Amino acid sequence: MSEINTRALPGFMELLPEEQLEFNRIKQIISTEYQKFGFTPLDTPVIERSETLLAKAGGETEKQIYRFKKGDNDLSLRFDLTVPLARYVAQHFSDLTFPFKRCHIDKVYRGESPQKGRFREFYQCDIDVIGHNELSLNYDAEIPGVIYSIFSKLNFGKFTIKVNNRKVLTGVMEHLELSDITADVLRIIDKIDKISRDEFIAELEKINLNKSQIDSLMNFIGIRGNSVDVIKALRDLNITNQTFNIGVDELEKVTDLMKLMGISEDYFVIDLSIARGLDYYTGTIYETNLDEYPKIGSVCSGGRYDDLASFYTKEKLPGVGISIGLTRLFYQLNEAGIITNNQKTVANILVMPLTDSQIKTSIEVVKSIRESGVDADILLQEMSMKKKFKYADKKGIKYVVVIGEEEAKSGILTVQSMITGDKSKIATIIIITNQGG
Amino acid sequence: MSEINTRALPGFMELLPEEQLEFNRIKQIISTEYQKFGFTPLDTPVIERSETLLAKAGGETEKQIYRFKKGDNDLSLRFDLTVPLARYVAQHFSDLTFPFKRCHIDKVYRGESPQKGRFREFYQCDIDVIGHNELSLNYDAEIPGVIYSIFSKLNFGKFTIKVNNRKVLTGVMEHLELSDITADVLRIIDKIDKISRDEFIAELEKINLNKSQIDSLMNFIGIRGNSVDVIKALRDLNITNQTFNIGVDELEKVTDLMKLMGISEDYFVIDLSIARGLDYYTGTIYETNLDEYPKIGSVCSGGRYDDLASFYTKEKLPGVGISIGLTRLFYQLNEAGIITNNQKTVANILVMPLTDSQIKTSIEVVKSIRESGVDADILLQEMSMKKKFKYADKKGIKYVVVIGEEEAKSGILTVQSMITGDKSKIATIIIITNQGG
Repeated sequence: MSEINTRALPGFMELLPEEQLEFNRIKQIISTEYQKFGFTPLDTPVIERSETLLAKAGGETEKQIYRFKKGDNDLSLRFDLTVPLARYVAQHFSDLTFPFKRCHIDKVYRGESPQKGRFREFYQCDIDVIGHNELSLNYDAEIPGVIYSIFSKLNFGKFTIKVNNRKVLTGVMEHLELSDITADVLRIIDKIDKISRDEFIAELEKINLNKSQIDSLMNFIGIRGNSVDVIKALRDLNITNQTFNIGVDELEKVTDLMKLMGISEDYFVIDLSIARGLDYYTGTIYETNLDEYPKIGSVCSGGRYDDLASFYTKEKLPGVGISIGLTRLFYQLNEAGIITNNQKTVANILVMPLTDSQIKTSIEVVKSIRESGVDADILLQEMSMKKKFKYADKKGIKYVVVIGEEEAKSGILTVQSMITGDKSKIATIIIITNQGG
Repeated sequence: MSEINTRALPGFMELLPEEQLEFNRIKQIISTEYQKFGFTPLDTPVIERSETLLAKAGGETEKQIYRFKKGDNDLSLRFDLTVPLARYVAQHFSDLTFPFKRCHIDKVYRGESPQKGRFREFYQCDIDVIGHNELSLNYDAEIPGVIYSIFSKLNFGKFTIKVNNRKVLTGVMEHLELSDITADVLRIIDKIDKISRDEFIAELEKINLNKSQIDSLMNFIGIRGNSVDVIKALRDLNITNQTFNIGVDELEKVTDLMKLMGISEDYFVIDLSIARGLDYYTGTIYETNLDEYPKIGSVCSGGRYDDLASFYTKEKLPGVGISIGLTRLFYQLNEAGIITNNQKTVANILVMPLTDSQIKTSIEVVKSIRESGVDADILLQEMSMKKKFKYADKKGIKYVVVIGEEEAKSGILTVQSMITGDKSKIATIIIITNQGG
């Protein structure tokens, strides 16, 4: 017997109870903030038709997807929450009110080769605002407002929201006559933090940029300062390209509004080197970094796109959104020692009857604690008192209430702190909630 | 273009935003109550090794399961949350504290032929208490305590928790010398509510029960009354079979404790005709019915089992648990017209700037509403005022705050009820939370 492998599959995160509580706490904060900003929660099937999921996808996605037949049906597990959103909005178009703001927090699946910090099943926490035909640029500023609110609550230290605009990048490429090789140039720009200045120049030379192009590009990327400074510096480049100038106007309006949203300049920056892929985004783009943990990379990214669901509907649906890759984030914060698992159990108070003779009183006590709004547990298994305290300790219980013969008779209960060992006698159980809640 | 099927697959529930909010509200109540009773939330992968999931499963399960290959791996989607719990407890045995109380609310997958009210992807909401070597009968009473707490909060009207004990049934079968055909007899007993008395007798005769056996069985099943009456009547049968008498003792102790747990006798009954399958349960068993909707059948079922994970570990792990099939329950309540979708949107208050010139003030207003703890949304899309009110109406917004030039200047805001049309002028935004929260 028991030759059966009982481990979760490689690439699938499985947590112990105390880790799960911390994971859920973070997930709950994200969910609460999303909804506070008016994003309505959606839930779509994990399984979709392969033809639907793969309508737009190419190479890598097709290779990674979990795809299988059931009867005659060609099915796949969703690999993100955006494609299901596109299908949902196309399908339920006439029942939705636009701008449509939705949040979706759930698991997605990618059969990548498992490696440290890469998961095959992972949570994405997405919000998107979808417009019909048009969507105000104001929403591009609301999204970082949500990011700011979440990471302020999460307490992972100082963070920086990086903002850029794809039109600015596209405009610069057009201006430098690099449109044909935009993809290659952006790929090199993307590496700027990881390679030296000389290596950077060498790579650009390799794809045949001339000295003047390289200088202009270095000038452009090198622009630093607060948002007002950066906008001014961009205008001072005197680039006449129209796309570029629309992009700069958008960037100015969005960053001005971000300040109105209450985001201090300490917490955001215009970073002209972020690009976020090539196909999808068309305007504002975002990345978010935890200042104390730069190696983690962006913990929350997204941007503005022209059309959500062109594969599914003729309706034009521009949108803007972000995603937090929670499973990867949690893994990396845990590795970095930031996850503390302060709370080891759902209930901080444990009521322990001395023997089964005190079950009646103990049940009454735990009931009144719960009625007062505090989660409490009761140990209903008979075991030695030593074992009971060991149980409470192992579970991370903060306060125990032992009900013996005396307590059952008198109604005077003793609340004992598992941390300090301090005992306090109390006459009514309601007081417990003040001491131990 | 757009030949692509954008519907969710048949058998997969997909809800509109207002339905989803109600679904989530119910799910949240279940989750909160589970945790209030000290059940710690777990999360296990949706995908498992086929050999693990199917270690115990047979016929029907194997046919229904979503099973597929990815590379060399033979994988399956979980078809319940109990088998993953067994694997989890076996795998993490030394890290867990017993009795181990866990809750798990998530989707499971069964490729049944789709029919009305049957789903291929559905939520199960499970709790289990797992002991190591032994588990006190006290926990058999805590479980209905949780059921009582949940359905009292859910407000689906009066409900009845039905309790029985498999040992009582087994003992009666042994006593009537029907052990060999227990399965057949229980299957007929299971139909007792759906067929007439004569049909019932005819079916028992068909499997060769004699008159005396049938009379005894009818006598036994016919026992009615409050729990004290039923226990007394069972003892009065004077059955000497040991299993039977252990079962009656357990039933007495569990129902006595259930009363201590605060469950009024109006809300539970010993029902000797419930059997809950044949292989798994070994002691106390539960079903729960909504009195006003008998056709829905049991909405919450479970029971006591001897060994959770015999396929995965040599440790003996007795347990007791229940499951609520939330997707099916929601569907049926919706069909019965009980689901009201009172709340159509996450935020009851919508701030609407007259034009983009009032964006600044509007953002400040919505920020201060949120800071006061009330979820509020802001309409950032420019459109005519008529369209803005239509938007608020369609979304089910209860209160709107229109910010025009006058309001932005004076700071005196008007809160308008979308239901009554009543307007009230207020000078500080904090007052809104009292009026509209």
